[in-house]
Parts: sequence; structure tokens; C-alpha cells
Amino acid sequence: MELSHRKVTKTMRFVDQQGTLLSNQKVSVKQTNHAFLFGCGAFDFIPYVLGGEDKYKQLTDKWLEIFNYATLPFYWGNFEPEEGKPNTEVLMNTAKYLTDKGVKVKGHPLCWHTVCADWLMKYDNATILEKQLERIDREVKGFKGVIDMWDVINEVVIMPIFDKYDNAITRICKEKGRVGLIKEVFDRAYADNPDAVLLLNDFNTSINYEILIDGCLNAGVPISAIGIQSHQHQGYWGKEKLEEVLDRFSHFGLPIHFTENTLISGNIMPSHIVDLNDWQVEEWPSTPDGEQRQAKEIEEMYRILFSHPLVEAITTWDFTDGAWLKAPSGFVRLDGSKKPSFEMLKKLVKEEWWTDMTVTTDENGCVTVDAFKGDYEISCDGKKVKTELLDDEEMVVMI
Amino acid sequence: MELSHRKVTKTMRFVDQQGTLLSNQKVSVKQTNHAFLFGCGAFDFIPYVLGGEDKYKQLTDKWLEIFNYATLPFYWGNFEPEEGKPNTEVLMNTAKYLTDKGVKVKGHPLCWHTVCADWLMKYDNATILEKQLERIDREVKGFKGVIDMWDVINEVVIMPIFDKYDNAITRICKEKGRVGLIKEVFDRAYADNPDAVLLLNDFNTSINYEILIDGCLNAGVPISAIGIQSHQHQGYWGKEKLEEVLDRFSHFGLPIHFTENTLISGNIMPSHIVDLNDWQVEEWPSTPDGEQRQAKEIEEMYRILFSHPLVEAITTWDFTDGAWLKAPSGFVRLDGSKKPSFEMLKKLVKEEWWTDMTVTTDENGCVTVDAFKGDYEISCDGKKVKTELLDDEEMVVMI
Repeated sequence: MELSHRKVTKTMRFVDQQGTLLSNQKVSVKQTNHAFLFGCGAFDFIPYVLGGEDKYKQLTDKWLEIFNYATLPFYWGNFEPEEGKPNTEVLMNTAKYLTDKGVKVKGHPLCWHTVCADWLMKYDNATILEKQLERIDREVKGFKGVIDMWDVINEVVIMPIFDKYDNAITRICKEKGRVGLIKEVFDRAYADNPDAVLLLNDFNTSINYEILIDGCLNAGVPISAIGIQSHQHQGYWGKEKLEEVLDRFSHFGLPIHFTENTLISGNIMPSHIVDLNDWQVEEWPSTPDGEQRQAKEIEEMYRILFSHPLVEAITTWDFTDGAWLKAPSGFVRLDGSKKPSFEMLKKLVKEEWWTDMTVTTDENGCVTVDAFKGDYEISCDGKKVKTELLDDEEMVVMI
Repeated sequence: MELSHRKVTKTMRFVDQQGTLLSNQKVSVKQTNHAFLFGCGAFDFIPYVLGGEDKYKQLTDKWLEIFNYATLPFYWGNFEPEEGKPNTEVLMNTAKYLTDKGVKVKGHPLCWHTVCADWLMKYDNATILEKQLERIDREVKGFKGVIDMWDVINEVVIMPIFDKYDNAITRICKEKGRVGLIKEVFDRAYADNPDAVLLLNDFNTSINYEILIDGCLNAGVPISAIGIQSHQHQGYWGKEKLEEVLDRFSHFGLPIHFTENTLISGNIMPSHIVDLNDWQVEEWPSTPDGEQRQAKEIEEMYRILFSHPLVEAITTWDFTDGAWLKAPSGFVRLDGSKKPSFEMLKKLVKEEWWTDMTVTTDENGCVTVDAFKGDYEISCDGKKVKTELLDDEEMVVMI
């Protein structure tokens, strides 16, 4: 597996505060974070930050053993159940708790037809759109500096023909068309925070989504990255499909984020189910065999994605079993214990793809290291500096 | 069936050359052409114009009994089999023959991956695109005033993934993306003839085509009308599908042209065939039962389309049986005799939806007629005028 795009070959020249070369010195190069975004749903952080309960503390501490990237829920219907009373403070405190730990936070989503605010439906379409855009202003400006990454709009391929129930967003998407609505919400989010990473996100990986992206880009929609969902409750896609999807969505040359990944450790959902939400079960146990399978699939899938130059993020949707659809979709079981998938992913993220080495400078005070891109703590001569290693350019380290 | 959108309620006031009201006079109101485009493939006109053979004279005269709108072939591979030697003269003479008869002509198509010029493949992609755009300049400018209606680009949904054989257009579509290539060719055709009717045309009527059109319109592509193919060799769509397609493609508010309609009078092609071109048979007879069925289907389909306000054109692809795929897809049999579908469509176009009446002016010299939109010859007091009846605005006829 070719991973050179994930690494730097960095020459560092060490000098002390007086500018004297530090020759023949031991240097410790310890990675502290990945440039790559290893993400997971971080919904469990909300009750912890709100109430401080120990059970959440234990969960979230396990979460932090692996991940550097969190998805927080901004579903309009839950975020602002009553018009004018958004849960801003709770989300802000949670986001800050995460960023203080070095975790990048993404808000999900700003516009979606599901879990939408019911109170919107009393307005006419022009007013709904106005309120949608004001909502974007409020969140994107309000969280700027804490959250600079957004799933701007979710599942647009189905949005105007979604017919499970009436909702305000399907109404305006039907009227404005898919690309028209995408353009409105992206233009607004971009105006609110031009430095933000703005994602289009969909579970539809067919040619429909390709044509939608193609249209958006030609219409000048400021999409920073393509979001691809991969909820595999009905079985692992496998290498072939995964590579085929990567191949098709690479044509645009944009970064690709796997935004919502699910691989389960229990029985597979029957293939005749079209909308995953239609599969409602009393319980959905995690099994020993399923856990081995999940760990293997996680390994294969993450290896393939990490080796693809355009993939910049992989987010597994559930950290704990039993969340969405009660599926055994997490890295930890219902009792909080770690599954083989947890250990597998931790090994990849914090050992195999992680740099922690000791080297010795030559007589010119130089070392050249082959290191995964990310944040580092570099120690030499009893002192430490923090730095980023992101490119191959030679660097002087004054220590 | 509501047809008010196809008609005018026109009050005409008749005066003689001295301005005297022509009261209580008989007026004959005879339609000479439809505003609606009743079209058919007009490939048979080419050998007639070239060679004047009687068999083609008989065919094309029958064609002219019904149709006012002709599709002429501009397939690049046939139009310019050797680079720099296009068959311009033959097409120009045929187009002029048709326009002299009051027939509007459309050129089909300017860009397509099928029947493409093989000699393009020796060039790199930048050169292929340049030659494609020059080709558009040559045809659209060269035929301006004779042909002002073009299928600019054909079957783009499949274009970049078409894999039956290598061809120059799939190559550039793969590189530029669907919307990117559509924009290039449309912008060029529009620059060459801003008054032309420019069509996007596809056989794919799925959500893919909807999203493609949506993207194009948001990207500012100057599409005048949406072209929908309806080759029904595998059986008539039926009322429900037809109305569903009309409904979905009406959202854009653009005129809709049914550009390539086929209903056959023989055995139906099996449904497992995906690409119609894969059905190669020695012969495909027209049967008496099939001919009755075809006439009924033609009637129902044309009635539905004519009653839809956004439909402006219906073109049946083959006039004569045995052309594409040897199918019994025409209005006349292989021996040139008229099928029931011919008589049925002629009855609709030239009787039921046709205006030919005699009325009497009142004491103010006025008559009000309820007439199908189109061209008219109006006679009164032994004299004739030609005029168009297209709106309800009151009109003074000086005769």
C-alpha cells in the first residue's frame, strides 16, 4: 500500500537559542496528532459536558484514545425545537470541550429534510428559505473559530422527491430545484465564513450524485469537499465497490470525506430494505463472529481509504452500539467495553500510521525523518518544541 | 381534453382597401400550417433531392401530407467522413427543399459519441474539443436562416461512461464532465446563432437527466427546449408513465420536445435488451394486429402530448418501416403503402386539430373565431390574405 502522500520526508537542522548547531544529539520525534481526520460521531460528549456523568466520561475518554475529528448534531428540529430558542450554549460548550482536546469539530447538517423543524411548515416557501438562510448565518457566524467545518446540505438527490412525510425543506427544494437550493445555502455559508470547509453530503453514490456535483461545480457552488455516506448495515461494500466509488468521485479533483461510515458486528439487515429507517427491531445484538468480521472490514476499508490521495477524512457514525436503528455499529458495546474493531482501528491510527521515533543529529545538527503528516512534539537536549510536519521543506528547529 | 392553450379566440374586423367596413360578408378561415410542430425524420428527402427518384417522390409527398417539421441527419461521421470534406451541399439543398414547402427543419445532432467521426481519434483531447467547436461554428452559422433549430448535444447522461467502443466525444466528456461539455457546445451554438432553438436531447428520462438539466440551467447553459426521446420498441410507455415523465420534466418551465418517438406495428422487442442496438434481426414484419395497436397508441400518445401546455413538438423517428433496427416503426410500410397510424395521425393533425371554417361578419365587419394556432389563408369578398393566428388580440384585416 502506497502511503507516501500521507508522509513527509523532513530534514530538520537543530540549533540552540544561541544559534549553535546541535550535532550528534538524540532527538525524539513524537506525533501528537494526525493531519488526516479520523472522525467519529461525538454525540455522547453532549450529555457529558452537560451533566458530567461518569458513564459518559468513561465513554468519551475512550473516544479520545483514537479520534481527532468529531461530528456534532445540528439537526434543526432538535437544535431549535421552538422557534427562536436554539440550543446554542450546549453545542458551543461541547464543541469547545472537544477543540480544547485538539479535536476538529464538524457541524451536521445545516439543511436537511429529515429531523427538520416542524414549526417551519406554517410559513410560505419564500419565508422558509429566508429562515433557512438566517439559520445558516446564525450557526456559521456564531460558531466561527470553534466550528469551521459544516455539512451544509444533506441528501439532496432524494430531497425534492422525499415523500415519507411533508416537511419544509422538501417543499423549497421542489420549488428551487436541487442545484438552486444547494447554491443558495452554500453561497450563504461561504459568505458567513469563507475559510470554512463546506461539504455536500449524500448516501446516494450513484451517477445521480455525480451529475449533481458536476452541475453544482459548473454553477459555481463553493464546495470544499465531497461527503460520501457509507452506512453498510446491509453488508460491507467490499474492496471492488469501494474502489469503484472512489474512482468515480475522484474525477472532480476535490477532497473526499467519508462522512458517515457504518460497519456492524451483528446480523446483516436484509437487502430488500430500501430506506434503512424502515428496519425497526427490538434488539440487534453484537455477536463474537460479527465483531471479528467488523474489525476485519474496518481494517480493509480504512486501509483503502487512507491510501487514496483525495480522501482527507473518515468518520464512523456511531461510537457506541445501539444508537441509530439499535445497530451493533459502534467501537464499544452497550456496556462500554471495547470491541475488536476499537483495538484494530487504534492500532492503525496510533501505531502503524503514527510516528514516534528517536534519532541522532549528524555533525551538521541535521536529521531526516520519514514521518506521518501531523502535529509533533520534538525533544532534544532536554527541551521540547511543538511543530507541524506537513511538507518536505527543510526546517530549522531552534530549541 | 383541454386544448385552449393550442387555440386562439380571435376577433377580426374586416375592412376593404378604402377602409370601409365589410359588414355581413362571408369569410373563409383556412388553416395552412400548425404553430405546433408535428415532426418526422426526413432522411428520405435526401435521396429524393439528390436523385429525384420517383419512389422517393411518392414517399416524401406522403410525408408532406401530415408533417410541418423535419429532422435531418448531421451525424458527424456521415456528414464529414473525411476531415475537411463535409456533405454541406446535399444537406443544404434538402433543407431548402423542405423550408420551401413550409417545413421547419432541425439538424440532429451537433455533438454525439455515436456515429462520430473516427478521424477525430488521432487528435489529443484539446484538439478534439477545438474541432468539435469549429464544427458547430461551421454548421450553425452556415445553415443559419435555413436551419435554426439544433439538437446541440445528444445522450449526455451516458456519454462519459459509454463503453461499447472508443470514440473522441466520450474522451472529451470524460475529461470535461457532462455539464462542462454541454456548456462549451451550447455557448458556442448560441454565439453562432442567438435566435436558434437549441436542444439538449436524451433517451434517459430518469432522475439522472433531471439533475443534469438542473445543473445546466444553474450553470447558465442556454437551453431553449428539453428534448426527450421515446423509442418504444419494447412496448408503449402508456398514459401513466407518459404523464409522470411530463410532470417531472415540466418543473423547469422550459418547452418540451418529444424528439424521437417510436411505436411499432410488429412484435415487441424483449424487455431484457438494454441497448436497443443489441437487437439485431433478419426481418421484423408489420402485422395487421400490430398496425391497429400502433394506430391506437399513436392516437393516445399524441393526444396526451398535444394537451400538455409545455410540449411544443412531437417527432416520430421513422417515416417508413424497416429503417433503424429494421423495425416496423413507420407510418408507411416497406412497399410505401399507408398504415392505419398514418390515417389516424393525419385525421388528428389535419382534421380534428385543424381549422377550416366559413363565418359571416356582423354589421361592424367583425367575426370572432375559435381556431388552432398557426398560419391561415383568409378570404373575403373574393380576395385573400395570409396571416398568422397566434394570440387573442383583436386584429384588423384589410383585404
